[in-house]
Parts: sequence; C-alpha cells; structure tokens
Amino acid sequence: MQNARLSAEYEKYKSSGKKLDMSRGKPSAEQLDNMTGLLTEISDIDGCFSENGIDCRNYGCLEGIPEAKRLFAGILGVREENVVVCGNSSLNIMFDLINNAYTFGIHGCEPWSRQGGIKFLCPAPGYDRHFAITKLFGAEMITVPMLADGPDMDLVRKYAADPCVKGIWCVPKYSNPTGVTYSDRVVREFASLKPAAKDFAVIWDNAYAVHDLTDTPDTLLSVLPLAEENGTADHFYLFTSTSKISWSGAGISCIAMSEKSKAEFLEIMKVKTIGFDKLAMLRHARLLCRSLGDVMRMHASVIRPKFELCYKYFERLAADIPGFVFSRPNGGYFINVNVPAGKAKQIVSLAEEAGLKLTPAGATFPYGKDPADSNIRIAPTYPTLPELEEALALFDICVRLACSEQ
Amino acid sequence: MQNARLSAEYEKYKSSGKKLDMSRGKPSAEQLDNMTGLLTEISDIDGCFSENGIDCRNYGCLEGIPEAKRLFAGILGVREENVVVCGNSSLNIMFDLINNAYTFGIHGCEPWSRQGGIKFLCPAPGYDRHFAITKLFGAEMITVPMLADGPDMDLVRKYAADPCVKGIWCVPKYSNPTGVTYSDRVVREFASLKPAAKDFAVIWDNAYAVHDLTDTPDTLLSVLPLAEENGTADHFYLFTSTSKISWSGAGISCIAMSEKSKAEFLEIMKVKTIGFDKLAMLRHARLLCRSLGDVMRMHASVIRPKFELCYKYFERLAADIPGFVFSRPNGGYFINVNVPAGKAKQIVSLAEEAGLKLTPAGATFPYGKDPADSNIRIAPTYPTLPELEEALALFDICVRLACSEQ
Repeated sequence: MQNARLSAEYEKYKSSGKKLDMSRGKPSAEQLDNMTGLLTEISDIDGCFSENGIDCRNYGCLEGIPEAKRLFAGILGVREENVVVCGNSSLNIMFDLINNAYTFGIHGCEPWSRQGGIKFLCPAPGYDRHFAITKLFGAEMITVPMLADGPDMDLVRKYAADPCVKGIWCVPKYSNPTGVTYSDRVVREFASLKPAAKDFAVIWDNAYAVHDLTDTPDTLLSVLPLAEENGTADHFYLFTSTSKISWSGAGISCIAMSEKSKAEFLEIMKVKTIGFDKLAMLRHARLLCRSLGDVMRMHASVIRPKFELCYKYFERLAADIPGFVFSRPNGGYFINVNVPAGKAKQIVSLAEEAGLKLTPAGATFPYGKDPADSNIRIAPTYPTLPELEEALALFDICVRLACSEQ
Repeated sequence: MQNARLSAEYEKYKSSGKKLDMSRGKPSAEQLDNMTGLLTEISDIDGCFSENGIDCRNYGCLEGIPEAKRLFAGILGVREENVVVCGNSSLNIMFDLINNAYTFGIHGCEPWSRQGGIKFLCPAPGYDRHFAITKLFGAEMITVPMLADGPDMDLVRKYAADPCVKGIWCVPKYSNPTGVTYSDRVVREFASLKPAAKDFAVIWDNAYAVHDLTDTPDTLLSVLPLAEENGTADHFYLFTSTSKISWSGAGISCIAMSEKSKAEFLEIMKVKTIGFDKLAMLRHARLLCRSLGDVMRMHASVIRPKFELCYKYFERLAADIPGFVFSRPNGGYFINVNVPAGKAKQIVSLAEEAGLKLTPAGATFPYGKDPADSNIRIAPTYPTLPELEEALALFDICVRLACSEQ
C-alpha cells in the first residue's frame, strides 16, 4: 500500500470509534463457558466434604485439601506434601513471598529491607506484573536476556555470585511473552545453581504448565526434584494456578516448596489467615482431576485459530518489513513480536489512538524500558475471531505506517 | 460435691477418652447447613454477571462488584465507595494493612520498620489472632483494659499522645471475648481521637456486626461518618466478613476506609492481585442482600440455646464459687468467664487432660499473659447441644476442683 492509502485506512479506523482490547492475557467468554460445570460441581451438603472428611465450609486446613494438593502436584511434577493451595491469585502469593523475604527474612537471613542494596534478576522480555512487585520493594532490577531456550544462564550464574542478588523471576513454560520453554539444559543449570545469597529465591511461575496449543507441545523438566538431588531445593518456589484453566477471577492457585521452605512460609501464613477457600478447591479438584486434559484441549481449540489468524497477518508483515519477527509458540497466551528498533512505542500509540489497546511498549522490560524500543506483546485470546481480525488489520496498518517513516 | 467425689467424676471423664473442642469460635454444622442455598445461587452462565455487567468469571474489578460493596456498606454503615471487597479472610487483609504500614509506610510517613520502637494498643481481654499479628511485626503491645462499654478511653487518649503508638485493635460489637459493644460515647471518643502519630491506624474489626442473639440486641454507631465530621477518617480501617454469616472457610470479607486511605491501600493491592473471587462475591451478595435478616435469625435460633445452656452451668458456679463471673452478651460468639485469680491456667489444663480443649488461658491477653490468670474464653457455638452439655459438665468439675485447692 502507498503511504497515502495507509493513512486514509488508518483514519477510517480512527473515526469509526470502535474499541478493541488486546492488552492483557485474558481468557475469552467461550473459554469461560467451557467451565460451566464448575458452577454445579457441588450442589448439596454431602458434596462439601473433602476426601479425608474435612468440612470445606468451615475454618481450618491451612495447607489446603488433599485432592487440590494432588491436582497441583501433578501439574507441577512435585510431591503433594510440597504444595500449599491458595486463593484465586498466584500473583498475590508471589507478592507475599517477596514480602516475607523483605520484611521478615527467609532461610534465617536478615530481612532484605535491612540488608539494603538488594538486586533481582529479570529475564526480559518478561511479565510486567513480576517487575512491578520487585520495583515496589525497591530491588534493583537486572535484565537478563531471554535466549531461545531460556534465560542466559552464564549471566544468571555470574550475577548470582553477588550476595546482593536475591532471586530471579522465571516463567519456565510458554514464557510470557516469548513463548519459550526452558530446555532441559537450562532447568538442570537452575537446579545446580549455587547462589552466593543463602536467601536467593527462584520464583518459578509455571502459569502455563498445561496450556498446550499444538500437536507438538513443549515439555518442561520439573525443577524441584532435580534441585533436591543437588541440595538446592530451598531456593525454589513454584507457582501455578487455574486462572487460565477455569476462571481467571474465581480459580485457585498454589505454591510448592521444599519441606524447609514450606515450614518457614507457613509460619507467616498461619498468622495471616486460617486458610483459603476450600469449597473453591474442592470444586476445582473434583472437576479437573477427572478432566484436565479434555478441558485444555477445549481451550486449545478456541485459542489456536486466534494464534493462526495472527500468524497470517504477521507473515505478510515479516515478508514486507525487514526486522519484523514474531514467535510461534506451542502454547501459552502470547505471541512475541519484534518490530524494527525504535518503532514499538509509535506503533502501540498509533493503535491506541485508533481504538486498539495493546500492552504498552516497554512493559515487557524492567522499569518499562525496552532499550531497543522494539518488543510488542500480542495477547490474542480475549477478542472473538471477528474482533481479532479487525484488530490485526488495524495493527497491520499501524506497523506499516510507523515503519514507512524514517 | 466433696473433693473426693469431684476427683472421681473427673477421672471418669478422663478415662472415657472422649474428645471435645470448644477452643475456637467456629460455626456448627447446623449453621453451615442453613446456607446451602449459596451452593446453587449461581447455576448457569447468565448468572455469572454482576448488576453492572461485569463477567465475574474473568479478571478485573479490583475493588469488587457493586452488589457486594453495597452489602458490606449496609452492614458497616458506610458508603459503597468506601468499601473494597476481599477474599475469604478479613484477618488476611488486617495483616496486609499492618504490613503496608510496616513495610511501605502509610499516610506519607516512614515505614514503621524504619521508625523503630513502635507500639500498639491492645484492649484486653481481646482477640488472640490480632495480638499474633502485632507480635509478628515486633510492635510493643500495650494492654488497655476493656471496661463495660469499650476500652478505657482515658488511657487510649493518653497513650495515643505518644507518636510511637501506631494504632489499636478494636472489636467494637459483641467484642471477642467480652461480648461488650462500644457505647455511643466510646465510639464518639474514637471518632474525635487526635493521635500524635499521623500513621495511627484504628483497626475496627466489626466481625459480629449483625450477630444478634437476643430480642434486645446492642446497637453500634458507625464510626467512619463520625470520623469524617471530625476530620479523622483517614485513621479508620473497618473490617467485616461473612465468616460467621455464610461459611467460615468460603466466605467474603471487606475493608472500608476514607477515600484517601483507600487510594493508598489500592496502590499496593493492585501490584499484588488483579482482584479477589468475584463469583464468591456475587453468590453472597445475591443471597444476603435479600435475606441477611432471616439468615441471622436462623443462626441465632441455633446458637442461643447453647449460650443458655452455658448460663445454666455458670449460674451454679457463680453461686458456689466467689469470684466466678461470666458475661451474658446480646450477640457474638463468646461468653467471657472470669475465675478466681490464679486459677484459669489450671482449669484449662485440667479440662484438656480430660479431653476438653478450651482456648488457652492467657490467649485473650497480649503475649498470652493474663496478669491475674483469671480469664477464660468460652466458645460454645461449634459443639452440638449434647456435646456442649458434656463439655460444660466437665468444665464445672474442673472449676470446682481447681477452686477447692488453696
């Protein structure tokens, strides 16, 4: 297209007044509908008791009910006794963990707040909400480049030799936003990492553990058993949730740890709460213990066409625009796009002005600053297919407009 | 009874091997059954949307849905916009509030952790889980005696003149364990309190706001509107929950604050979570907005006979044992018993050895230390009536045994 024609097309979108949102990794209504069975999973008093006889309506059972622990142990590849089942937000528990280390200290060390000058490793592109937590606690964020099979482990080892470096954020499978799954080598290198700081925390946010989209899904080694072999297990905090399995606003989550780290975590947790919602645990455990595979296949059948529609547009852009590259992940919620350097912000704001909200450019880097101004996270799950097609057509125009300028 | 006969009776209980638990304020199965309608309150997709069209299954809506805000605003006597609806544990949110002040600072002040030497007022007898939170954060706990209509306000004012005193724990209605409801005078004096510390926090844990048991229920003035009139509203953090309305393990809770305090609270909360379980909010709001009064009358009809059974035993003890006194609250979950000085620990351990678990003696005081060793919290709600009768018969023997010794 000529520039004038592009501009005319762009103005047409802008003046249409339509609003589209692709800014966050949200399930679509169709996915949420897939889980309607949860609403009626427990419908009478007899249904309110866990397999070991706990009345899930009443107080108690700090670690969560056995069937929910088993569900998450299976997803994470850990033992049931490593798991503590929590509420609808794993992010909340990640925050709590960082807070514990900062305010009370972990592994017998001084609280981070008193040690001062603490640093945290942030593989990037990464997840903006992770970075927001470390920023709030005042940790200096150190960017570690994401390579094709995980973070640059040479750099991770180098930085971890500094006792001020207190941990690292990881999304080890179908990483947000790159879609990368950590290779066996990377997982083994994590498991054998010997950080200088005794209170080093690997936040292993396995949010997309079972979120395959293709017939050739990635596989991830379970890091906790490997870390146990290496005597490093206390450093690992594994998280997952049903936010993108059942309902983002009404699911359950968990944290899994070594025996020692769990005992330490529960010491604080027991002062804070008498336990999380056990009826939510019971509903989820019952439905998902019998049908997790089917549920994820249903979700994939909804999401996969959206990813493919993106690829159709992105292939044309990649063919026409040198420097436009994109990921084709085997699962997860995002497509990672890189546009020519210096163009990401401009593209995102062109889109926003015309009614399409994208993840802010830079959000995938610590401090919201993408040094190359080139990374854009595409979150195609929430819109319907027709909405997505409109969004992609507009995105296409914005990319071409921005890249046609010098 | 003679001492020998008492001892024989006691040994009979002890050798029976029965286990009874009156240690915590837990609803009974019968109360939980009263709320079975919650299980089927939402049974299809159309039912999942809030009154303003929010899909409660998905992410978003940090402050909670309007109907749940309205439910709690009504219970607390505040405006909807003051309310943030949270998860199944109000204790968790009290912890978070103290944590915010300690770790990040509130009202523009330095974090308590950096100020050092902070103190907190603890009306006693009071709630052990409150004291556990302040203890964990290392605040020095100052006991303020509970009088017949609330904490000793002369002392509260005196202590609050010290800028190191950072707040006070309050259970203003049917207080745990005394059953006292703060009089209008006390509430007004709270509302007009001018603490030296700008970051003074009144934790107003209104857990028993609608938990009347008699035909002459207590009434509590709403403190937040009065505090607004006095320009002190930013100090007040009001809490309530459905833990003892619906299900202790699967309810919803809230915090209510001034506009300014709320904005500050949400600044941290938004880093921590994308929002609490909105389907739980929707189920509760729908059922309770139409039937809260009926629900609480059903609960009262279950609980009241248990309180009356206690009174039957306690009246005999009071007649026989000088210094045995007990409360007859108009609502709430506890009966407050005072035994002759120096006897509480002995009575509780006699009971425990014979199979009856009571709240540990001293738990109702900061650091678990009742200076007079005389206060025992009786929590009669959880056992069935026959179980309660057995427990009271044993308690009676334990009191008489302990008090017969010199």
